[in-house]
Amino acid sequence: MQAGETLRVGVRGGRVGSAVVVSEDPSGLVLQVTLDAEPPPRAGVDLVLAIPRPKALKRVIPAVASLGVDRVVLVNAARVEKSYFGSKVLAAEFLAGLIDLGLEQARDTMPPVVEVRERFKPFVEDELDAWAGDALRLVAHPTGSLSTSGARGRAVVAIGPDGGWVPFEVALLQEHGFTPFSLGPRPLRVEVAVPAVLGALRLGR
Amino acid sequence: MQAGETLRVGVRGGRVGSAVVVSEDPSGLVLQVTLDAEPPPRAGVDLVLAIPRPKALKRVIPAVASLGVDRVVLVNAARVEKSYFGSKVLAAEFLAGLIDLGLEQARDTMPPVVEVRERFKPFVEDELDAWAGDALRLVAHPTGSLSTSGARGRAVVAIGPDGGWVPFEVALLQEHGFTPFSLGPRPLRVEVAVPAVLGALRLGR
Repeated sequence: MQAGETLRVGVRGGRVGSAVVVSEDPSGLVLQVTLDAEPPPRAGVDLVLAIPRPKALKRVIPAVASLGVDRVVLVNAARVEKSYFGSKVLAAEFLAGLIDLGLEQARDTMPPVVEVRERFKPFVEDELDAWAGDALRLVAHPTGSLSTSGARGRAVVAIGPDGGWVPFEVALLQEHGFTPFSLGPRPLRVEVAVPAVLGALRLGR
Repeated sequence: MQAGETLRVGVRGGRVGSAVVVSEDPSGLVLQVTLDAEPPPRAGVDLVLAIPRPKALKRVIPAVASLGVDRVVLVNAARVEKSYFGSKVLAAEFLAGLIDLGLEQARDTMPPVVEVRERFKPFVEDELDAWAGDALRLVAHPTGSLSTSGARGRAVVAIGPDGGWVPFEVALLQEHGFTPFSLGPRPLRVEVAVPAVLGALRLGR
């Protein structure tokens, strides 16, 4: 960086704006910062995601952050491979780095809250009702309807692993107020399904 | 594979079904094939994509194939780095492999037609009208409306490079019948934007 150059900047959790490089020395850049705008609006969507394979998770978390999702619970499911829990990608510092990539991409400053739950049933039975609150609750499942219309307020969307949720999981989510909806007859990778759902909920009007 | 195992199969360009392994020998598998179903319906969407960086292209092409897009033109644009044209990812055999990944994922047999155009202006002026035909024409651009409603028939969507289309490009596309629509205030990576657009056009009803 050279003195006089301009950068886009933002304060984590706060406003965005620009900064002019005043000087650069071994201790870092000296910037003159103007924070003159709010970060972009939120999508109003939370996700319950069956833990994807680590390679997919490395793409999904930046995507989720760039799309303005507020909260993500990464949850175990019958078709999640147990080895995924040992992945370094699930470490808090690694997740934080992936979130930052997505925020930078979208010029956002509000990181999604990402949590991991190692047991599906206790999460759904004991936590999910309070966590989802008043939001519309949807579960991606091939037998659901193709429509997401009506989802104009907050929405919580549960998206299964490769191979989908097993019947027990769909039934338990339905007991807790989740309506099945379908992404169509094409099985999609989670890194494709997540943006498609956000597009359907927030752009398809 | 062992004799008696069942595989999902499909004939490129044709029907899908299942196959039972009859035997395996050094020359390959002997299968008993039943092609009892049509491949999934098409999305009815064609894309004009500014050539993404090679790493993104490797993700976008399988995504596009899995989403049932019919045709993709990868086109040059002012903000496309010239070095991308030299990428091995644009070679026909490499693209074919990426398409197969997406088809396998979606249990589809109908490959999208992917073409490359090295010059934007002649493509838009001389080819695009005939190529797009009667489809609704949309160009992703921040100043457009947020709505994609009305896009129930065929749609052609033009999606720019990182950094977006330059004004000349948007103006030329508008002259050729493309209506700007916005993906929202968040700049998205092309591999996120493409599924979001497909979700908005085909799921958000």
